[in-house]
Amino acid sequence: MTAKRTDVLALGNAIVDVFASAEEDFLIAHELTKGAMMLIDEDRAETLYAAMGPSKIVSGGSAANTIAGLASFGGKGAFIGKVKQDELGKLYKHDLTSLGVAFDTGFASEGPATARSFIIVTPDGERTMNTYLGACQGLTVADVDKAAVQDAEIVYLEGYLWDPPAAKEAFRKASEFAHAAGGRVAITLSDSFCVDRYRDEFLGLIRNRLVDIVFANEAELKSLYQTADFDTALAALRAENIVAAVTRSEKDALAVTPDGIIAEPVFPVERIVDTTGAGDLFAAGFLYGLTSGREVRDSLRLGALAAGEIISHVGARPDISLKTLAGNEGLL
Amino acid sequence: MTAKRTDVLALGNAIVDVFASAEEDFLIAHELTKGAMMLIDEDRAETLYAAMGPSKIVSGGSAANTIAGLASFGGKGAFIGKVKQDELGKLYKHDLTSLGVAFDTGFASEGPATARSFIIVTPDGERTMNTYLGACQGLTVADVDKAAVQDAEIVYLEGYLWDPPAAKEAFRKASEFAHAAGGRVAITLSDSFCVDRYRDEFLGLIRNRLVDIVFANEAELKSLYQTADFDTALAALRAENIVAAVTRSEKDALAVTPDGIIAEPVFPVERIVDTTGAGDLFAAGFLYGLTSGREVRDSLRLGALAAGEIISHVGARPDISLKTLAGNEGLL
Repeated sequence: MTAKRTDVLALGNAIVDVFASAEEDFLIAHELTKGAMMLIDEDRAETLYAAMGPSKIVSGGSAANTIAGLASFGGKGAFIGKVKQDELGKLYKHDLTSLGVAFDTGFASEGPATARSFIIVTPDGERTMNTYLGACQGLTVADVDKAAVQDAEIVYLEGYLWDPPAAKEAFRKASEFAHAAGGRVAITLSDSFCVDRYRDEFLGLIRNRLVDIVFANEAELKSLYQTADFDTALAALRAENIVAAVTRSEKDALAVTPDGIIAEPVFPVERIVDTTGAGDLFAAGFLYGLTSGREVRDSLRLGALAAGEIISHVGARPDISLKTLAGNEGLL
Repeated sequence: MTAKRTDVLALGNAIVDVFASAEEDFLIAHELTKGAMMLIDEDRAETLYAAMGPSKIVSGGSAANTIAGLASFGGKGAFIGKVKQDELGKLYKHDLTSLGVAFDTGFASEGPATARSFIIVTPDGERTMNTYLGACQGLTVADVDKAAVQDAEIVYLEGYLWDPPAAKEAFRKASEFAHAAGGRVAITLSDSFCVDRYRDEFLGLIRNRLVDIVFANEAELKSLYQTADFDTALAALRAENIVAAVTRSEKDALAVTPDGIIAEPVFPVERIVDTTGAGDLFAAGFLYGLTSGREVRDSLRLGALAAGEIISHVGARPDISLKTLAGNEGLL
């Protein structure tokens, strides 16, 4: 395997996050499932936005958040995702490229607007996401830059890509290119409802070895194996004989390898302000650890650190340099 | 004087804030004057934005921030300001009206884009603002809704309105309507460089009683009276025989009235994250106090509380309900 120029290339939905705080009864009044990501159409987006309070706008998108975090650690990242050439699309591109991330997917010049997720943050810090996919629906296999994929040590794909119709083919193509060039492929299961929609396909990806590394949280893992018991789900995952990283909110994060399970505690935070991006940033730290040649345990620690930073403020992109933060904590 | 339906109506530049963190050397490299508001043209805006890191977008504008704060306390606010009918303009309108603020100024349908301020936040929490006025330049006397102004107990105007060419006439007209209807008029001096640009006109507004209440910080007051000594500036302000509220960063805030000077300490904050909007939110609390019939000292306390909230996070609009916060602190 020749040396790769990119540590991680991610393929994901390119989404601008629109954050507003609200009380729990807002979720009830608008029939929102707390903690989930729900897809909404343009009409619903308008209705919901009109009902929401004042907002903060921050670039988001699960896999893109992970790449932003990787770049903040000092890793070399690249991103493939579709935005329109509108104000939010240009903002989105700025926010990634200003971190040094290679983001060369062409803008959509027509069709729906840049995607946005209307995120309600309740007083407990939990986020409930309502995503209008917009321009993301225009991501196709033609956007998968073969050379860029071949240049990446790990190609990282989000399960959410199963939602826009053409993106799953892009996903499969990226996996094929990566493996042909000696790279590894990682997937995040994204959301328990997403797993529920695409369970068989996700299991197929794992069992047919289209992916080599799986990121999941507790709810996603239970959904994948259709069990209410975490240990049962974990045992099923171990039986896949794959590398996996599993987060469990405030409980220890786990790395599952053919050699066994390693657990590391979460990073302590003073106050959970907004959990958006916790899993994405955990993946950023873990992937940075793996691609910079660190042990699995240290990679878990970096993941926990990045997740801790992201939940201490609004927005799923780091507010401070994760490289500096990790240095201060003696992890780099 | 009949009862007014609005506590405070503000007239100001309607600006979307684009926040990015940067080290001090960014300010030097781009020749930015730390802590100041500088006006930039479209080319400069593009250059600066390209050099900035990832950003967060939050509605801003000095007087609008004050009205947002007033509404968060539970006050009845209204705003006059000009945005274009573009993505950021619609976002801007949403953020104010969702707080219950009356904002009925017509969108600009052509001409420059909605204004934005590129705000660099250094590690000490200080903000340096670079403002592209855009659509704000289209605010004219025709936008001053006479009935709305007459309905306000206090009309609040920002000194920054002297920058766009036509707005100062709107300012004067609003003052005239307010006084004719038995209302009071307040001005914030906005920025020491702004005072430097328009010193004689600002002194004229005070001495000709076009304004009844003055908000200033220490630097603005020194600039107004062209002295390096705060006590000299304060004595000159007292000699105007006017009501004024003066903030001094971490030092006590002062209320100056014909009866004397009242001082109240700042509200303690754990960490100063971003000072943007500190003066705006101080004004919000003070004005809410005055218009809800509170004593001057209590109004100072509400101002200090709101300023403390705003500097503890990125963005110049409150993250939490100031009414709730003030209730928790026993101030309401």
